[in-house]
Amino acid sequence: MTRERLHLYDTTLRDGQQTQGVQFSAAEKHEIAGMLDALGVDMIEGGWPGANPTDSEFFDAPPTTRATLTAFGMTKRAGRSADNDDVLAAVLNAGTSAVCLVGKTHPFHVETALGIGLDENLAAIRDSVAHLVARQREALFDAEHFFDGYAADPDYAVACLRAALDAGARWVVLCDTNGGTMPARIAEVVRAVIAAGIPGDRLGIHTHNDTEQAVAGTLAAVEAGARQIQGTLNGLGERCGNANLTALIPTLLLKEPFASRFETGIARDRLPMLMQVSRRLDDILNRVPRREAAYVGASAFAHKAGLHASAILKDPTTYEHVPPEAVGNMRVVPMSNQAGLSNLRRRLAEAGLEGAPDQLSRILTRVKEAEDRGYAFDVAQASFELIAREELGLLPDFFEVKRYRVTVERRKNKYDRMVSLSEAVVVVKVDGEKKLSVSESLDETGSDRGPVNALSKALAKDLGRYQGQIDDMRLTDYRVRIMQGGTEAVTRVIIDHEDGKGRRWSTVGVSANIVDASFEALLDAVRWKLCQEA
Amino acid sequence: MTRERLHLYDTTLRDGQQTQGVQFSAAEKHEIAGMLDALGVDMIEGGWPGANPTDSEFFDAPPTTRATLTAFGMTKRAGRSADNDDVLAAVLNAGTSAVCLVGKTHPFHVETALGIGLDENLAAIRDSVAHLVARQREALFDAEHFFDGYAADPDYAVACLRAALDAGARWVVLCDTNGGTMPARIAEVVRAVIAAGIPGDRLGIHTHNDTEQAVAGTLAAVEAGARQIQGTLNGLGERCGNANLTALIPTLLLKEPFASRFETGIARDRLPMLMQVSRRLDDILNRVPRREAAYVGASAFAHKAGLHASAILKDPTTYEHVPPEAVGNMRVVPMSNQAGLSNLRRRLAEAGLEGAPDQLSRILTRVKEAEDRGYAFDVAQASFELIAREELGLLPDFFEVKRYRVTVERRKNKYDRMVSLSEAVVVVKVDGEKKLSVSESLDETGSDRGPVNALSKALAKDLGRYQGQIDDMRLTDYRVRIMQGGTEAVTRVIIDHEDGKGRRWSTVGVSANIVDASFEALLDAVRWKLCQEA
Repeated sequence: MTRERLHLYDTTLRDGQQTQGVQFSAAEKHEIAGMLDALGVDMIEGGWPGANPTDSEFFDAPPTTRATLTAFGMTKRAGRSADNDDVLAAVLNAGTSAVCLVGKTHPFHVETALGIGLDENLAAIRDSVAHLVARQREALFDAEHFFDGYAADPDYAVACLRAALDAGARWVVLCDTNGGTMPARIAEVVRAVIAAGIPGDRLGIHTHNDTEQAVAGTLAAVEAGARQIQGTLNGLGERCGNANLTALIPTLLLKEPFASRFETGIARDRLPMLMQVSRRLDDILNRVPRREAAYVGASAFAHKAGLHASAILKDPTTYEHVPPEAVGNMRVVPMSNQAGLSNLRRRLAEAGLEGAPDQLSRILTRVKEAEDRGYAFDVAQASFELIAREELGLLPDFFEVKRYRVTVERRKNKYDRMVSLSEAVVVVKVDGEKKLSVSESLDETGSDRGPVNALSKALAKDLGRYQGQIDDMRLTDYRVRIMQGGTEAVTRVIIDHEDGKGRRWSTVGVSANIVDASFEALLDAVRWKLCQEA
Repeated sequence: MTRERLHLYDTTLRDGQQTQGVQFSAAEKHEIAGMLDALGVDMIEGGWPGANPTDSEFFDAPPTTRATLTAFGMTKRAGRSADNDDVLAAVLNAGTSAVCLVGKTHPFHVETALGIGLDENLAAIRDSVAHLVARQREALFDAEHFFDGYAADPDYAVACLRAALDAGARWVVLCDTNGGTMPARIAEVVRAVIAAGIPGDRLGIHTHNDTEQAVAGTLAAVEAGARQIQGTLNGLGERCGNANLTALIPTLLLKEPFASRFETGIARDRLPMLMQVSRRLDDILNRVPRREAAYVGASAFAHKAGLHASAILKDPTTYEHVPPEAVGNMRVVPMSNQAGLSNLRRRLAEAGLEGAPDQLSRILTRVKEAEDRGYAFDVAQASFELIAREELGLLPDFFEVKRYRVTVERRKNKYDRMVSLSEAVVVVKVDGEKKLSVSESLDETGSDRGPVNALSKALAKDLGRYQGQIDDMRLTDYRVRIMQGGTEAVTRVIIDHEDGKGRRWSTVGVSANIVDASFEALLDAVRWKLCQEA
């Protein structure tokens, strides 16, 4: 059975940039376009040429992509011809082979926002699309507020689509601009539009996540007959975001009824790139990746409940709807209070460790006791492994910390400005030799990075013969939580590291003293790294 | 037209605790149960008594709620009677008026995970439920893997539900345990189950977010006839999380076709609590609230696109599907200061302050600049008031901090045990006189309470003629959050104080250096207190 073709249209670089706090540089846009192209989307909307300097710069030197690069703009304004509209001219001047123009389809918006007559708006759509087509561009019409417009006046809303198609548009895209339309209603309207004579293979769907249903609304539209999907990576976009392609793509490729009925431009063997694409985008935006993100989140295949963990060991399909490898992700069976022995065995096996029943039971007891004091081993696998190694007799005494001291000072500098500075001294004994290291907290720019930074540098400064094994360690994240441990507050610190071989690991420390909790986590990070290098 | 009743069942405290990194204390469970009860959910699942110490502790001293507090457990194990099952006994011993038991409905899981026969499983369901009912408990049966089970063997899956109902269960809950079922399929199966004789008003739905469609799947089940919804606040839960009640509740109350067809236990005038409930849960978990969260996110009603922002000023319904106030949120229009100024005026009035337009504008600019650097004045009203007072010329120069120094040391004590100790020196100038104060971090029991404790004590030790005004200050809470401020991580500290007159106030400090951020918040706390006493 031949599968129908679904077209994927990415608008991360345009609608995704409407996310609060997001502003891509032209270089970042190039990198993201490259990732989208490698993944295999069909069209990449690059921005609105003329609307801001970065978008103009991007189209001045556009990336070379197999995907169709698309410029975004709006239909011509009232009272001038398409030829004389400078906004439209700027969009055409970008020279892309495809252009997408947004326009109104809701009588209320036509009359109040544009302040023109309904026929005038139909003419603007027709003339603008014809203007693109006459210049050999593939034309798309984004029907803004389509679902609200259809509710208010179905005939007029469909007439707008027909005007665009009659003028030669390849696609008309139904936009749920305010994000408030329920998936069932989206399906109903798409079916009605097709019944009114707009072919499904000319229909696109563009949803927003204001009721947390953008993905479902998009899939409902596809089941009702729409054949182009607009969305963004990681669901970026105005307000609550656009339909999340990072969730939609695996569903389309892996899940029924979609996998059998449709094909997309994304080959099945490209799908394992997805997690890295998602993470790289977060990297570019300096955002912490959402652990709970569908398919690509660090927790998406994490099985914390004890009952689940033991079943997963017998057969992963018991608690996984798709294999994590399919999207480049991996299974995690974390340690936690809720977990039992089978979970523990699994966790040890992943670290290449195994133990006798009495050893396992001692490890479990230590883990549970520590968790009662505030430790969280489900997110700090490396600290868990160190406890296990110690009980299994597999943790070498690499070195001993004799003492440390950190000083935080704030005082006026010679320019009479208040400045702060931290200094750390760490004393360790390695191979019988005492080593004193001192570091301060200033970074390359002379800014104070605080006591934990100074401590981290001092600890990793001179570990004798182990020094070469830890030089490629880098602290990547630091998280703090104050908890009520009994009657007094204790501080839990989680620290993430990575190394030159691409390993990433997390450690935990707990103390009433935040610096001491941090030091414990830092020390675990170094010891774990040395275990890997041993 | 009378509306049908939908029942809301919250499982934040049980399934929500399966979130990686989440481990509630009994006190936190109490607080969350209180919020859920105030909001108006029907049932609150508190945990699994006997499964871990915290859950047992919670049920030993349960909160008093209008909502039905429910204990969770599993159907009796094979080879023993319900009377002799100690796991089941622990659940019953919690003494709740309702009990929810999870059990198998999928032949594969019955035979491989439980390793028992299909009839034996039916008997286990029947006997367990009957055991609850005989003890006057309202019984719920969570049908694990129901949708996968129904696909494999519809007759058996429905027979499991019937066994539970026949034994007296009030509700049977269809669980999409692996989160892989599409909303359209969920609707189809719910309709089929009802057609097979299971009444819709005995049917619950429990979905997971593995394809980002948990909310849509839940609503599809409701449209198909299910009348109980299980979900969690902020969508907490195993892997990608459970159905998000924070998104579902406003949709059910505000959006069609749900608002007209159904009523829930949540009164419309309680809905504006929702944003604060969501934020407080993030606070408890020390999670950064998701800006893009549906309804309650800080960006949910933020209109960044220029076209949108100008239309919003004419008529908010142009780009908002519901009014932000309905869920306790507010509109953000970055292009206009209009919303900001009226908000500012209100907050100043709350502190008994007022200002001229140019002063207000300067305050707003300072607040916005500081918020860009990570300050959070919405939770630190006292720090906000100090900025306002400064711009209004109402902040006396009580004293000047010349410098401070904190030392954190860890070393062996005379008993050869590693101990830590912090010491703080603060130098202030009061009425032209320099005063040095020193404090250490040990509490009455000789335990180290850390550098911030030492600093707090030293700062408040000798402020000359002001000393009598601050002696009744007491630090009550201390919260830390690491944030991405530009390219580098910065630390935000929020400190709560109270005094002998019952005043409570919160201050904020931000710095790359956690001790310095803490000092800033401590200093604000003292200055705010002196303003009240002046």
